[in-house]
Amino acid sequence: MRDVAVVGAGKTRFGAFADRDLRSLAVEALQNALSDAAMGTDAIQAFYLGNFAGPSFTGQSHLAPYIAGAAGLAGIPATRYEAACASSGAAFHAAWQAVAHGIYDTVLVCGVEKMTCQPTPRVAEILAMAGDVSTDGTFPEIFAAIARRHMELYGTTREHLAAVAVKNHGHGATNPYAHMRKVITVEQALAGKVIADPLTLYDCSLVSDGAAAVVLSATGAGVPILGCAQTSDHVALRDKAEITHLPSIQAAARQAYAMARLTPAEIDFAEVHDCFTIAEILAVEELGFCAKGEGGPWSLQQPIPINRSGGLKSKGHPVGATGVAQIADVTLQIRGDAEGWQLGKANIGLAQNLGGSGATSVVTILGKR
Amino acid sequence: MRDVAVVGAGKTRFGAFADRDLRSLAVEALQNALSDAAMGTDAIQAFYLGNFAGPSFTGQSHLAPYIAGAAGLAGIPATRYEAACASSGAAFHAAWQAVAHGIYDTVLVCGVEKMTCQPTPRVAEILAMAGDVSTDGTFPEIFAAIARRHMELYGTTREHLAAVAVKNHGHGATNPYAHMRKVITVEQALAGKVIADPLTLYDCSLVSDGAAAVVLSATGAGVPILGCAQTSDHVALRDKAEITHLPSIQAAARQAYAMARLTPAEIDFAEVHDCFTIAEILAVEELGFCAKGEGGPWSLQQPIPINRSGGLKSKGHPVGATGVAQIADVTLQIRGDAEGWQLGKANIGLAQNLGGSGATSVVTILGKR
Repeated sequence: MRDVAVVGAGKTRFGAFADRDLRSLAVEALQNALSDAAMGTDAIQAFYLGNFAGPSFTGQSHLAPYIAGAAGLAGIPATRYEAACASSGAAFHAAWQAVAHGIYDTVLVCGVEKMTCQPTPRVAEILAMAGDVSTDGTFPEIFAAIARRHMELYGTTREHLAAVAVKNHGHGATNPYAHMRKVITVEQALAGKVIADPLTLYDCSLVSDGAAAVVLSATGAGVPILGCAQTSDHVALRDKAEITHLPSIQAAARQAYAMARLTPAEIDFAEVHDCFTIAEILAVEELGFCAKGEGGPWSLQQPIPINRSGGLKSKGHPVGATGVAQIADVTLQIRGDAEGWQLGKANIGLAQNLGGSGATSVVTILGKR
Repeated sequence: MRDVAVVGAGKTRFGAFADRDLRSLAVEALQNALSDAAMGTDAIQAFYLGNFAGPSFTGQSHLAPYIAGAAGLAGIPATRYEAACASSGAAFHAAWQAVAHGIYDTVLVCGVEKMTCQPTPRVAEILAMAGDVSTDGTFPEIFAAIARRHMELYGTTREHLAAVAVKNHGHGATNPYAHMRKVITVEQALAGKVIADPLTLYDCSLVSDGAAAVVLSATGAGVPILGCAQTSDHVALRDKAEITHLPSIQAAARQAYAMARLTPAEIDFAEVHDCFTIAEILAVEELGFCAKGEGGPWSLQQPIPINRSGGLKSKGHPVGATGVAQIADVTLQIRGDAEGWQLGKANIGLAQNLGGSGATSVVTILGKR
């Protein structure tokens, strides 16, 4: 297996862009990534696209060649990967495998979602397709059930959830690419409109448009990928042994740590999948940053920075873009290029991307040792 | 690069099944493939799912872990590949690459589509998403334009198109897994209801439910994969230099022939993507079985058997299942297991899977030398 590095990263701003279509967002991000890598399209041997629900949101399918053609990439293999909210995590994983194992030397991975469309599609209904539509409810309902159970089992409080929201809003306020650059207080978070008890508006990530892209290569300088793993689990909540435990995250993390020959204690910072505040608390537990059940108190202390970009909560969550956006943001931090939101110590970073309520997990560790 | 073989193949019957859902079709096909391979689920290291429009047809997304979980495969990487009508061709290509390059030793590839749903979705509208929805029309309109142009440039006639339909219906009538087992005459084909001039009902493939699966392995006896390539092109018809030429097929074929160290003259039989009769005529030209423009007369003579399974025209076209179903059928022929529709000479077979009007192409050559 060869060493693979992220040699270029590009993003669009995340937000609600009435005047932008899906393709123009994707093309902007991938051109930014190519420009960052100082490469032309001729260097790219395959195009990996992560997109969750472009056909449902925009009415256009066959999106990989649709985007590749507009970007001057027609000819090469171009495929769309769909794994719910981990769609571009899955695309990244496949692309990394392909370069690491010598299938290609240089590839482009892009994630994109256009969610704020006219006429407005039924967003909650489309997102619910990432769960089992016959037995699960909406995602706020799913994660509210998980939160209630976590509170019952471990004493997690609404204040713990609010602390995650306040932190991520504070982080996102400093990131020029974030969707919502607004500092909030604990009082505001606690007083938010209830979406699904105990989750308020401030516990939920944003409905955003946006794209992100990275160039992966086995040659050239960049930020090395030290470990990457993808796992799966049942889709339906009722098929999980214990809903506060998402074993797919834990399994992907263990594989990624083993590959990187690192322990959780050696991670300097992480971008985790905070589709809801409770999901960040579960993530830090499953990733081994703290013991099971300790995610609430741990998040209050924040021994290492989590979601310095603002996370899905404040940076935004254009579903299919999120996995690659996390990788791009970890890359920027490690390079020292996170202008306005740069961490002091950022040698080893982790990105954790979740599909649905854990039916897909992708964990990636990047860094310079 | 290692040798990879298809060590197991399984299918469902294709048809319109009011009482079957998408998942049960996929699970039936993959269990048949595992059984054919004499393997349990524990041998499978990754699950590759090809599906075009499950979310639009059935309202369920995140289909790879949704199916994997029900089949006892929870835990392993499970991803859905979407490339329009070449969705499972793209999944197969990625799976073959992964085994050939040592990422995995044994994987399962499944293709599935459930198109006849209640309430009946707008099938033509969903299928049109595989083209450019802002500039292309429906697929019958797209391929009618291609047919008219082919007639104008090369003297292709409606009788040539009808001959393809008659042949494929005759073939499908002998295949117990085919959707429509009905022999038709040239007179019937020519007198069919006009769908998009010059294409009649008999020039169009079927709207079907069905699934197919194959097990690929670097170890164990099976039918060797001699070459496999995936290419892309622009999605919109108006971006093609000449609509009767689909360069993505030609490029994928050339790569697959080179990999297999074979020429078109050494292929014994082929399963090609006859979504419309004119598409079969284009395919035999682009695959190099005859010169450009000669596809009509060549098809009348049929020097080598094309679509002995019945093709998409008669076997049926559950979009996301088609690519893997072609591979499964070529495998059965080479093994001598095509009961009732076995060819005499079937050592080297080719499968050609097309996405949209050529924005994705996958060509695979299998055989025993």
